[in-house]
Amino acid sequence: MRYELYYWPSIQGRGEFVRLALEDAGAQYTDVARLSKRDGGGTQAMMQLLEATELAHPAFAPPILKAGSQLIAQTANILLFLGPRLDLVPKNEAARFWAHQLQLTIMDLVAEAHDSHHPIAASRYFEEQKTEARRRAGDFTATRVPKFLGYFERALARNGAGRHMVGRACSYVDLSMFQVVAGLRYAFPAAMLRTQAEYPRLAALHDRVAERPRIAAYLASKRRLPFNEQGIFRHYAELDEGR
Amino acid sequence: MRYELYYWPSIQGRGEFVRLALEDAGAQYTDVARLSKRDGGGTQAMMQLLEATELAHPAFAPPILKAGSQLIAQTANILLFLGPRLDLVPKNEAARFWAHQLQLTIMDLVAEAHDSHHPIAASRYFEEQKTEARRRAGDFTATRVPKFLGYFERALARNGAGRHMVGRACSYVDLSMFQVVAGLRYAFPAAMLRTQAEYPRLAALHDRVAERPRIAAYLASKRRLPFNEQGIFRHYAELDEGR
Repeated sequence: MRYELYYWPSIQGRGEFVRLALEDAGAQYTDVARLSKRDGGGTQAMMQLLEATELAHPAFAPPILKAGSQLIAQTANILLFLGPRLDLVPKNEAARFWAHQLQLTIMDLVAEAHDSHHPIAASRYFEEQKTEARRRAGDFTATRVPKFLGYFERALARNGAGRHMVGRACSYVDLSMFQVVAGLRYAFPAAMLRTQAEYPRLAALHDRVAERPRIAAYLASKRRLPFNEQGIFRHYAELDEGR
Repeated sequence: MRYELYYWPSIQGRGEFVRLALEDAGAQYTDVARLSKRDGGGTQAMMQLLEATELAHPAFAPPILKAGSQLIAQTANILLFLGPRLDLVPKNEAARFWAHQLQLTIMDLVAEAHDSHHPIAASRYFEEQKTEARRRAGDFTATRVPKFLGYFERALARNGAGRHMVGRACSYVDLSMFQVVAGLRYAFPAAMLRTQAEYPRLAALHDRVAERPRIAAYLASKRRLPFNEQGIFRHYAELDEGR
């Protein structure tokens, strides 16, 4: 099976959680919008799929995964679908619901990370909501990040030797957790530096994922887009604490 | 199987999406926190489960469903679990992923509905963020609600006779869609009245769900909590358009 991923070609964003799973599994996939227009790529290719009026199962937003004739959207839903196919989730059903539960909680944190710089309207510029963003980002780093990361740290600690979020091997949840830690460190270096000692297991998990051979190769490649200020995790010095 | 639902006892909130599925299926369930303290209920019972240190699969937030020895959290995940068990989703796998995709998009809308009155911090009073809430609610009703409802209206129109969101029978997605329409009408009556003609199929779906015998009985019972200003859909006149 060759998968097709449809996502914005210039940001990590939510698509990155899917990319990390496909990369770690060594899956064959095309990151369609990153192909040249000549090869049927570009943002246009993604927009065409989003707006196609003949689709029975239209997507509200990217990322969208095409697997044969099946189209699947919503990041956590894509990972629910890919998990068993890429051997990135345990086999038993209860563990799969647990993995999905953790992934949905990760996606909640991701949505809040986005709103930390866009608390009023995603459709308006950051500069139009900077004052509000300062207040929201302050609450996000002081209250929400510790609540989420404290929760994930506890969940990790309760899972056997505390080396994996779910089960006894690397799952898509570990890959997503890596991305969240990396993203928060990029966006809020001061806040994360101050509190990092409180999440030793998550920090170690981040490092182990980064060293997985296929992930390390991916991170060193041009396929890994850099963090930037168009994505979800953005670094604005005025939103990081103590600035 | 007798299910136990753990959710705030005084609001509809996210728990209502689970309650509607259990009610429509005529499932046996206990809404634990709504029992008296004497009977092991109250908010305390929910908090104990949330904070229990011995759980391998802790929840980040309610609602939590207990099914035998299994604990499941995250609203859409609970419905993913209950769907097949309550016969509230089609049997084929592709339709189940599609139903879940729609449900996750509904939950995104629900999160945005919450943030329309709490754009800065969930932990602070509405009065502390009323100015920001006016801006965000303005964008929510002008931009986001039309985008979401327009999407759901299209998805409904593309599904056969346009009577169900998924497949040919009532699913948990229809029940959730009913709740979203009811909630938005409660919170933003002026905005919804002005735009209702644009979503005729969703309006008809809402009415059909309300007339389902078990749902009608539930809505008329004391088990159905009224909308109020502690829940997700809140009516503040100053946030509804034209006020």
